[in-house]
Amino acid sequence: MRVEIVRNILDANARLAAENRSLFRKSGCFVLNLMSSPGAGKTALLEEIGRRNRGRMAIGVLEGDIQTALDAERVAAAGLQAVQIETEGACHLDANMVRNGLAAFDLEALDLLVVENVGNLVCPAEFDIGENCKVMMLSVTEGEDKPAKYPLMFRESELLLLSKVDLLPHLRFDLEKVRAAARRANPRLEIIELSTYSGQGLDQFDAWLARRMARER
Amino acid sequence: MRVEIVRNILDANARLAAENRSLFRKSGCFVLNLMSSPGAGKTALLEEIGRRNRGRMAIGVLEGDIQTALDAERVAAAGLQAVQIETEGACHLDANMVRNGLAAFDLEALDLLVVENVGNLVCPAEFDIGENCKVMMLSVTEGEDKPAKYPLMFRESELLLLSKVDLLPHLRFDLEKVRAAARRANPRLEIIELSTYSGQGLDQFDAWLARRMARER
Repeated sequence: MRVEIVRNILDANARLAAENRSLFRKSGCFVLNLMSSPGAGKTALLEEIGRRNRGRMAIGVLEGDIQTALDAERVAAAGLQAVQIETEGACHLDANMVRNGLAAFDLEALDLLVVENVGNLVCPAEFDIGENCKVMMLSVTEGEDKPAKYPLMFRESELLLLSKVDLLPHLRFDLEKVRAAARRANPRLEIIELSTYSGQGLDQFDAWLARRMARER
Repeated sequence: MRVEIVRNILDANARLAAENRSLFRKSGCFVLNLMSSPGAGKTALLEEIGRRNRGRMAIGVLEGDIQTALDAERVAAAGLQAVQIETEGACHLDANMVRNGLAAFDLEALDLLVVENVGNLVCPAEFDIGENCKVMMLSVTEGEDKPAKYPLMFRESELLLLSKVDLLPHLRFDLEKVRAAARRANPRLEIIELSTYSGQGLDQFDAWLARRMARER
């Protein structure tokens, strides 16, 4: 019974995600679904993306949070067009919530739309929202066991951003161990080490994004 | 329709949680539900609890994870009786999963059972498992905005453990700001600053736990 309810929800989601996908394709807007635990640094990365691309790319951000518009305010201050979706308790965004948020954007005028998912390593990975690609972030403060414990998100993502690497000298964290574990979960996963404090990895992320967006044209 | 399904699931959970609660009361075992984001340091704290109470208290740990028995192995190595529940995709423990895990313990012989919930700041707070108290952990690397963004977990918890405070010199994190935000979400919330690296706060946590357990006798 419970399994059937879940299957039903995912079926409905898949249909709505397909509609979103066709909308994105028609508009020529590239859509990136950004996922991580709470506090890994998604919003800090978006602020950097805003500053680095000001005047070069038209970028929108759809912010998913249980409550508050704090993140939308932060990325708007960095020059991005931001819309907040409050999920009212739901621990992930689904295709329908994204669809409702899209009404606030002129998709044809955007080059890139980043959907900042709810901070959660579990359910966001289960819900297709019609995006072009999924990117996940893992803070090095979270420990090396996360790819083994949350394999779905690693499997679904094309890129893993290892964030807060400026803290590595103060942690017992083995980068090679987490890289190996992530690749066991997903052998094709690309990995970039990142710090929005030191700036490490930001050029590499820009280059990755440009290449990835070019592939859809 | 969806609201009704959710209400149904929560009603069924409440009934099973009440059964767990009566089982716990009869056995005289104190049950603590420990919740946090992935990688905040729940398992590291349990390892410390194991080492510090060896021979003084009989402690069991029920480990909830999507996949793997890594955490159960870690806390068993620290001298605790550990049982792993793999939730097979569910992002939280519910009363029924806990009930199934209980079969592996002799509750009458335990002083304390800690349920280490799935790493997630959202759904674990929604599911009563029949515990005596909920404790949450927030790593200082996660940022000060978490009480505003995830208020339910702060409201449901009696104690907030602010973990990884040894990293504070390397972060832009305002302890007073997060304390104030946490107390806005829950004015009665107690707060302990903790580091399993430096040992800060562990004595304070022991004292808190002893007081809290004594209140149930």
